[in-house]
Amino acid sequence: MSGKKIEVIQNIFDENDRIASIVNESLEQLGILVINIMGAPGAGKTSSIINMVKNLPGEKVYVIEGDIESDIDTVKLKELGIETIQINTNGACHLDAPTIEKSLQELTIDQPGILFIENIGNLVCPAEFQIGEHVKMLICSAAEGSDKPYKYPLAFEKANIILLTKCDLKAYVDFNDEFFLRGVRALNKSVPIFEVNAKTGAGFQEVSQWLINRKN
Amino acid sequence: MSGKKIEVIQNIFDENDRIASIVNESLEQLGILVINIMGAPGAGKTSSIINMVKNLPGEKVYVIEGDIESDIDTVKLKELGIETIQINTNGACHLDAPTIEKSLQELTIDQPGILFIENIGNLVCPAEFQIGEHVKMLICSAAEGSDKPYKYPLAFEKANIILLTKCDLKAYVDFNDEFFLRGVRALNKSVPIFEVNAKTGAGFQEVSQWLINRKN
Repeated sequence: MSGKKIEVIQNIFDENDRIASIVNESLEQLGILVINIMGAPGAGKTSSIINMVKNLPGEKVYVIEGDIESDIDTVKLKELGIETIQINTNGACHLDAPTIEKSLQELTIDQPGILFIENIGNLVCPAEFQIGEHVKMLICSAAEGSDKPYKYPLAFEKANIILLTKCDLKAYVDFNDEFFLRGVRALNKSVPIFEVNAKTGAGFQEVSQWLINRKN
Repeated sequence: MSGKKIEVIQNIFDENDRIASIVNESLEQLGILVINIMGAPGAGKTSSIINMVKNLPGEKVYVIEGDIESDIDTVKLKELGIETIQINTNGACHLDAPTIEKSLQELTIDQPGILFIENIGNLVCPAEFQIGEHVKMLICSAAEGSDKPYKYPLAFEKANIILLTKCDLKAYVDFNDEFFLRGVRALNKSVPIFEVNAKTGAGFQEVSQWLINRKN
């Protein structure tokens, strides 16, 4: 790449990080723990949010839904009484900090709590952009196979918590637990990994407890 | 975005398309049908290649494997005797035409046939970049859920053929066939959709026959 292109890209990253810091600090002052939820398409991000919220009865919860198009998940969350606002990126493959800063103007934050931001379904690009989060939550599905840490290392390296979803499908897809764990640990020695099943709710009580501990 | 940023991005797209045309035409002259295989992480792209190859006994097959990191799939394909070269993008979220043009120098094309190019596991960015293909093949897994056309429309809009993989998992994930099909047809009236299962090989004979018909 030419010097000019590199400079433009570096400027985009710098400006993003500057705004991410502002978002991060201003929400922290309001007592809001911000969770950046990343994962491939169909990993179970929205279903995981629903299950975490069910296990956070004493917490005020806010959700920002990121999608390229559609508001399918926002409709689903609102029907459950979860305060949600929709971002449509119209093609963009990840959320960025300026987009979050702008969307926060639509959100009425009247008490401390947890803000889940569901990023675009993409195991690559979202890992490169801070959006003001305190916690990066990586969601991957057992149905994707156990080789994901080896193929998409950045997201695993940066994750503060990993949810392995659809664990009921392990038997049908020859998921290799040892291979998966070895891949994660080579990138991230200490990240907690929770095995969950959004259909039964199994494992989500422990995830929500982890969030409460992290917040307090 | 500023005028300068837009200009830089437009130049990247223009230069990419120029090289994609060259790759496309030069391979066509050699009697090579180029398939750009796109899909989310864990959709079953490599397993689908293996199954298509099994059903193409009379065809010479070449594979270019695109991954951010690792050569897991290339090792797997080579063990099966499939001529494969590896591209590692070291972070980049899609393949582009200059990368393919360069990698072709490593590939000995000694007879007409089919070249499968497995793109990076990503349902967003690869759909924006031509890489010299004659056919865009979209692979999505039943385990990802039936709402993918609504959330990731560009890939569905541009696909020349769609493979719905892991169809054995439909029952476990409440896959809604009618909702999926309605989403696809709203974007792409005529694209053929093949339901397949890479574990049993079901459906791949029909896919390979479609490729042969398309090539001849």
